[in-house]
Formats: sequence, C-alpha cells, structure tokens
Amino acid sequence: METWDAITSRRDVREYTGDPLRREELHAILEAGRRAPSSRNWQPWDFIVVTDREQLRRLSEVWKGARHVARSATTIALVTPEHPDQSRERAEYDLGQVSMQMMLAAADLDIGSAHSAVEDQERAREVLGLPDDCRCAYLIPLGRPADRPLMPIEQPDRREFDRVVHWERW
Amino acid sequence: METWDAITSRRDVREYTGDPLRREELHAILEAGRRAPSSRNWQPWDFIVVTDREQLRRLSEVWKGARHVARSATTIALVTPEHPDQSRERAEYDLGQVSMQMMLAAADLDIGSAHSAVEDQERAREVLGLPDDCRCAYLIPLGRPADRPLMPIEQPDRREFDRVVHWERW
Repeated sequence: METWDAITSRRDVREYTGDPLRREELHAILEAGRRAPSSRNWQPWDFIVVTDREQLRRLSEVWKGARHVARSATTIALVTPEHPDQSRERAEYDLGQVSMQMMLAAADLDIGSAHSAVEDQERAREVLGLPDDCRCAYLIPLGRPADRPLMPIEQPDRREFDRVVHWERW
Repeated sequence: METWDAITSRRDVREYTGDPLRREELHAILEAGRRAPSSRNWQPWDFIVVTDREQLRRLSEVWKGARHVARSATTIALVTPEHPDQSRERAEYDLGQVSMQMMLAAADLDIGSAHSAVEDQERAREVLGLPDDCRCAYLIPLGRPADRPLMPIEQPDRREFDRVVHWERW
C-alpha cells in the first residue's frame, strides 16, 4: 500500500473479525516498531505479543478503555523501564513514536488497531510476568476490522487545517 | 512510495541540500500531522511552519541539539498548550505520534528529518511569538538529504528483534 493511503486509512478499530493475524504480518508490525527512532537511540521499550485468548481476556481488565483487547486477534504490550521523573516524559514521546509506526505498518496490511492506556499496573505485571523495574505503558490491540475495510478517509474528525497550521509565527 | 519502504528508509537526516520544499510536499506532511490520533481526539498541537532563513537561524539556538534547524529547508515547530502535570505525559505520547506520522510522510517524499527537543523556551517563545499558555515542545527540521537519498536500511542500528520481542509473557 502507498504510504499516503496507510496514513489516511488508519482509524481506531475496536471490533475485529475472529481471523488470526499471519505470522509474517505480525513480524512486519513488530519490525516496524523495532525500527522506530528514539532519543539518542535508547529504545526504551520491549514488546510482548499476546495471542492466547485467556491472556487477552485478563489483559483487557487493566483499564476501562482496554476492553477491546479481549476481542483482538493479537495485542502488543509496550513495556518500558521505570524511569525517574525527568526521563519519563522523554520515554512517553518515544513510546508515541513507536506506537504510531506500528499502527501505520498494521494499516498498510489492512489491519486495524486502537491503542489503550494501562491503569492497573499490578494486574498487567501479573498477567505479563513483568520484572519489578518495568511497567506496561500501553497496549496495541490488532485485528481485521469487523465493520468495514480500512479506506482513505476524506474528512477526518480533526481541527481544520488552517486552524492548526501557522506560517512563520503564531 | 510503499509504506514499508518509507518505514525502512526513514533515518535521521541533519545535512540538507539548499533545495526548498514544494508547497504541495509541505502540505502533505502537515496534513499527515493533522490526521494523527490522540487521546480522546484532543489534538494537543499547533504547527508553525518556519521557512525564513533568519527565523530558522534564530530558532536553531533553542538547544544545542537543534543546530541543524538553521540548515533545514523548513522546520515545523510543534506547539502544545501548557498542561498540568498529569496530562503532560499524555501530551508527550501524542506529540510522539504526530511527529512520527509527519516524519514518515516526509520520508515518503524523499525528504529527510531529525526532530529536536527545545530547551530555551524563552527564546522559542520570542522567535515564534507564542502566547503565554503554550510552549514549543519539539522542532521537526526538514530538507532533502545532502549526503545520499533515503533508501531502505537493511541492518538498522537497533537492539535485535529477538531481544525486543517476547511471546505471551516476559
């Protein structure tokens, strides 16, 4: 798929067909994540790939906005070291970059996604078997859209271009 | 360009030819940013497009890692409202997503980029004419690579796939 089509087709997808993802699709999405840029190339992330249905169900209870994890074909858990305060913001920015790159790689394969925050760290730690010095920062549920295929969106639900973009100065 | 080629070709580019970007190229990069996802679609960003050479030179002084801004064809300044502490992390994650989407849209057009943090907020505020309740979070300098064109990178400088990816549990 053309990059522009992936960018304009990606949308939050929370209802998935029962179809599993193929191994090579998953590999491409993970590889896209691995390649993401980060501050001084510190790569503050590990990816845990969850496909077991019972694991997905338990993982979906980490936050009220994570229920769609239970229905996903696969969910990628983004795990990050516990950072001291000043580098925590830096990690968040880089986690945003890695998430976006994986979700675009997914859209390129007609795979939907909708990331979720994680509130209950104790549960996430238990389900994923995390070491004490890490936390699960975000979940990226994946699956083929159950409603309609991904297609370029003409009028995205966003602030208008001329309101967002300024020239030379504010 | 295929999405996969944009993902694998993007790298940090800090040396640019003197070529300006075409208006439609800049529009595509900004439109990609406008479409980025964010927490509950709050879109915590404004984009200031800087192409004036003297503005770029002044902007390059906001941080020691921003010197390449002075040589860029265009730099997009990401401006975000001043957030209270708890939503500041959330904004960082979303700023990471919007940056990644813009940098991939740039790579798709053979345009290089290398984002920079901003340390001296007073200077950024003065150069960009920002209102008091906003800060300039990041700069995204853009330009055609002076060294070599963007090409898919076979062996990216990253931790190995099998060290980053875990299956089902840590």
